[in-house]
Amino acid sequence: MNDPILVEVTRGSLVESRHAGRAVVVDADGAILFSAGNVNAPIFPRSAVKALQALPLVESGAADAHGFTEEMLALACASHGGEAGHVETAAGALAKLGLDESALECGAHWPSFKPAGAALAREGRKPSCLHNNCSGKHSGFLCLACHMEEPTQGYIQPGHAVQREVKAALEGATGAVLPDGMRGIDGCGIPTFAAPLVAWARGFARFGTGHGFAPDRAKAAARLRAAVAAHPWHVAGTGRFCTEVMQLLGSRAFIKTGAEGVFLVALPEQGLGIAVKADDGGTRASEVATAALIARFLPMDDPTRAGFERFVRPELKNWTGTLVGGVRPAGALA
Amino acid sequence: MNDPILVEVTRGSLVESRHAGRAVVVDADGAILFSAGNVNAPIFPRSAVKALQALPLVESGAADAHGFTEEMLALACASHGGEAGHVETAAGALAKLGLDESALECGAHWPSFKPAGAALAREGRKPSCLHNNCSGKHSGFLCLACHMEEPTQGYIQPGHAVQREVKAALEGATGAVLPDGMRGIDGCGIPTFAAPLVAWARGFARFGTGHGFAPDRAKAAARLRAAVAAHPWHVAGTGRFCTEVMQLLGSRAFIKTGAEGVFLVALPEQGLGIAVKADDGGTRASEVATAALIARFLPMDDPTRAGFERFVRPELKNWTGTLVGGVRPAGALA
Repeated sequence: MNDPILVEVTRGSLVESRHAGRAVVVDADGAILFSAGNVNAPIFPRSAVKALQALPLVESGAADAHGFTEEMLALACASHGGEAGHVETAAGALAKLGLDESALECGAHWPSFKPAGAALAREGRKPSCLHNNCSGKHSGFLCLACHMEEPTQGYIQPGHAVQREVKAALEGATGAVLPDGMRGIDGCGIPTFAAPLVAWARGFARFGTGHGFAPDRAKAAARLRAAVAAHPWHVAGTGRFCTEVMQLLGSRAFIKTGAEGVFLVALPEQGLGIAVKADDGGTRASEVATAALIARFLPMDDPTRAGFERFVRPELKNWTGTLVGGVRPAGALA
Repeated sequence: MNDPILVEVTRGSLVESRHAGRAVVVDADGAILFSAGNVNAPIFPRSAVKALQALPLVESGAADAHGFTEEMLALACASHGGEAGHVETAAGALAKLGLDESALECGAHWPSFKPAGAALAREGRKPSCLHNNCSGKHSGFLCLACHMEEPTQGYIQPGHAVQREVKAALEGATGAVLPDGMRGIDGCGIPTFAAPLVAWARGFARFGTGHGFAPDRAKAAARLRAAVAAHPWHVAGTGRFCTEVMQLLGSRAFIKTGAEGVFLVALPEQGLGIAVKADDGGTRASEVATAALIARFLPMDDPTRAGFERFVRPELKNWTGTLVGGVRPAGALA
């Protein structure tokens, strides 16, 4: 069954491209307020669940025992752009553990923030594992491994105590069972588990409210939300959607993207979780669909709404700066 | 009406993402040998039609009058990666006209070939219009403007004599009328016209055979095909799909991609044209769909077919080099 078109890309007066997808808005009890497409089919949430994966880091006391700062907690939830401040924060987190980048098992890639890559190239350097967008999350995993007195080597493997804790946190938050048959390998080497889109949305409604969480887990969730709200640059970076939306909305929205067109959002005041999957994996589509749903479910004053419009209907300009088209919500999101 | 799923992306044992699209295979008379999705809806071909846009450059005698080399003709059909050799060829073409990069109206952007960008950054330089993937095409437009004794300034505007010639070549090749209402602005500033996918496929069947072209136009098409077959690196670059497929298949396939998930292919020996549009604009989808259709319609010996398989079913590896999934044809293309 095809999912509905949720986002269109225009050029001149025509629709040039279009994105099908799934989107759902639920409360912490699982009541569905909005649904489009097959929201019961399993999807890999990828990096969108980093905040849930970071719950054991805080709840266990590992982060506090090792003196992790709020910036380090935000970075544990991040897909960062590899900017200098991100790299320094990750290196600082590892230093708190008496480790360095050689302990990271995430692999290296060039920073997604192009000026950071250009700066590396200018200095004749190559990126390290610290530049990997997941280096903060992995530093958090290593912190948990140290705290549990488990070997740090192999912390990305499904059978390692850290990944077993992380999986339990995901199952606890979503209420979904995550069997081995639903497991894939993420870009950074850790397990990623597929579950219904609606389950991830419910997990984020709970993450945003603590409703359905044990007290210590609810406290950990509030702590991570506060860290990201205070340091939204650490969760993505300069010019990035997650960062800019949270800079505008503050603690009223916790937003995290994942590879292959995934977004998970918590709206704590409304008690809602939002989950979006662009079927084709396109980020521009998942961004616009997510913005459209936030605009629908989060009350905003007029100046905020005006500032938010560019996320809902971004313009497309060409290399000469000429306006050539745009991206806009379609179908059930229009 | 939704188009069918043509390409799937797997992770582990699951389908993580999927791409809907349209694809059509026709001969020069317009007989349809394969069709999936709504192939009569208009699509912008974008850079996939650069070879048709270069027909007036050759047919008019402009290229020969100004001593354009075969590499410069290949670059006129190119979306190049901004590698040093591409930039030198474009600069050389402009020098033949007594012009330099200041005459280019395509705008500047960083090379898509990352080492070329890193080299620029290392030298503290920024990209110029020569690095724009369209600089070869624009050099060809300037050559035509000089040859027609028209002003070079404004050569990208719809009313300029060059763009009127280019539009006439597109209409002649496809048999489609291209009214102003179907016009958008391309990434490099020139007009792009939407027409049915099947019309673009027919245009490429004619481009590949000369069937339906006047003799001088047929000769120009053969000249451009030969230039690209001899210099496939110039039409895209290191590691790029168009280049690597043509390095494998030689003059048996003329292949060109365009932004937003478009591919146009001519199979001269078979007398066929292929047109593909990934609805969401995704390049990985259009590449795999195109490869699947080439594999179906172009006879290959066993070693060639074995070497071609990686284009039909590319593997996906993560940052640590672990195989995590793949991309594969689906539905009518499976």
